[in-house]
Amino acid sequence: MITSFSNPLIKSIRKLSLHKERQKCGQFLVEGIKSVAEAIQVDAKIETLIIAPGLLVSGFGQSIVEQSQKKSIPIVEVSDEVFTAISNKDGPQGIAAIVHQNWTKLAQINPGSNEIWIALESIQNPGNLGTIMRTGEAIGAKGIFLLDQSTDPYDPTAVKASMGALFSLKLVKTEFKNFSAWVQEKKVPLIGSSDKVEQDYMTYQYPNPCILIMGSERQGLSVGYLKLCEQIVRIPMLGRSDSLNLAVATGIILYQIFNQRRGIDFPA
Amino acid sequence: MITSFSNPLIKSIRKLSLHKERQKCGQFLVEGIKSVAEAIQVDAKIETLIIAPGLLVSGFGQSIVEQSQKKSIPIVEVSDEVFTAISNKDGPQGIAAIVHQNWTKLAQINPGSNEIWIALESIQNPGNLGTIMRTGEAIGAKGIFLLDQSTDPYDPTAVKASMGALFSLKLVKTEFKNFSAWVQEKKVPLIGSSDKVEQDYMTYQYPNPCILIMGSERQGLSVGYLKLCEQIVRIPMLGRSDSLNLAVATGIILYQIFNQRRGIDFPA
Repeated sequence: MITSFSNPLIKSIRKLSLHKERQKCGQFLVEGIKSVAEAIQVDAKIETLIIAPGLLVSGFGQSIVEQSQKKSIPIVEVSDEVFTAISNKDGPQGIAAIVHQNWTKLAQINPGSNEIWIALESIQNPGNLGTIMRTGEAIGAKGIFLLDQSTDPYDPTAVKASMGALFSLKLVKTEFKNFSAWVQEKKVPLIGSSDKVEQDYMTYQYPNPCILIMGSERQGLSVGYLKLCEQIVRIPMLGRSDSLNLAVATGIILYQIFNQRRGIDFPA
Repeated sequence: MITSFSNPLIKSIRKLSLHKERQKCGQFLVEGIKSVAEAIQVDAKIETLIIAPGLLVSGFGQSIVEQSQKKSIPIVEVSDEVFTAISNKDGPQGIAAIVHQNWTKLAQINPGSNEIWIALESIQNPGNLGTIMRTGEAIGAKGIFLLDQSTDPYDPTAVKASMGALFSLKLVKTEFKNFSAWVQEKKVPLIGSSDKVEQDYMTYQYPNPCILIMGSERQGLSVGYLKLCEQIVRIPMLGRSDSLNLAVATGIILYQIFNQRRGIDFPA
């Protein structure tokens, strides 16, 4: 059992909170029973499972350890104090995993009928990104295009907010030039969002498949992406409001697309 | 101009980040052009306006200062360095205000026809609370009941996330016993949310007026509140998802209530 904070493995785990370190090694840290269970269920490539026996008290937690043993995943035990030091949670559950990042190349994506994808232009807040991944999983989205200067889905805050959803979504990192060429080649309709258009998000018939593209928290969608859109929709707002939180706005439109797919829709 | 970090006013402003200090003095700090402008527009009781002339460069910012002068609001100038130290923003805009908290007593609330209210049981995350206030303003909600051990709407993170919306909502702090007595006396229908019921949130006709009640991030609604509800609705989810982010879930149901009010609804 590792009890020293200066153990090389513990030091390398702590470094995974830094973007440049994650980029260098292509790994990230996932924490908590639900998220680690999801990583194992989807057969994510797990480098090491880290457990603190004193903190891992639940039966479900124990069963994850057993599953990992069956899959020959290396397991390292650490003291409760060491685990708490590497933890990003208020109540550490005593289980975490070092997992290999899993990026999909843009050229490999061919959206099939009925698929819903999400594209985010320069999203800044990792909490928003994680929350959008969580909503994306709930409506059955296939994946997320992270465009231009978007934050990292493997940032600890994004991983935490995604509640394991990042394992079930394809993640594609690209920028304007390649993405616009790909959209035009594949002819997948891009649907944008803006408060400066007339089209109500509720009375529009979303195409199959489609990509919902949302702009950054501060600036919304830039002109280049707006021009790529087949349609731009608006979420109506009352009072002095001129915008919603990005994760909320994305969730509201995604659920309307999902509601249409499941046959619940306002007749236009 | 205040240039010293140990100036008594600066020290008292920094203390406003602590809950117990806010409770003692009944004030809080609001920051940024949009939020301060909203405080002035709704005639919030402003104790002091704080500006850093070197940072406050926009014309709109200048016009807020002029409005404040007309309203005889005391204005204090501070150096850019001092302002940056009291700021909670990445890019400080050089304008902030010390504002009096504005609570409404439960007994004063008589929800009128068409009104939408939000109730939150022991919401923990101030960012979620601020985001819900922001969505609440956008759909024209009248106010928020903060139940039991809910976080403080005047917490800096909540204030920031609300983007000024907290000034246009009535805020009521109460707990189960008084709230349940009030609900039964006023006969205002309470609509809850849970993943354990059959009723789809989309095919339910929300009453006028109504209160949407949401549970805490970790535990959802407790049994006592569920029993108080006229109806409990469910947001459908696919895959391994069993919950959404609280602010996203609240936003999705609020928008459905709002859509019904504005005549956009799935025919049941």
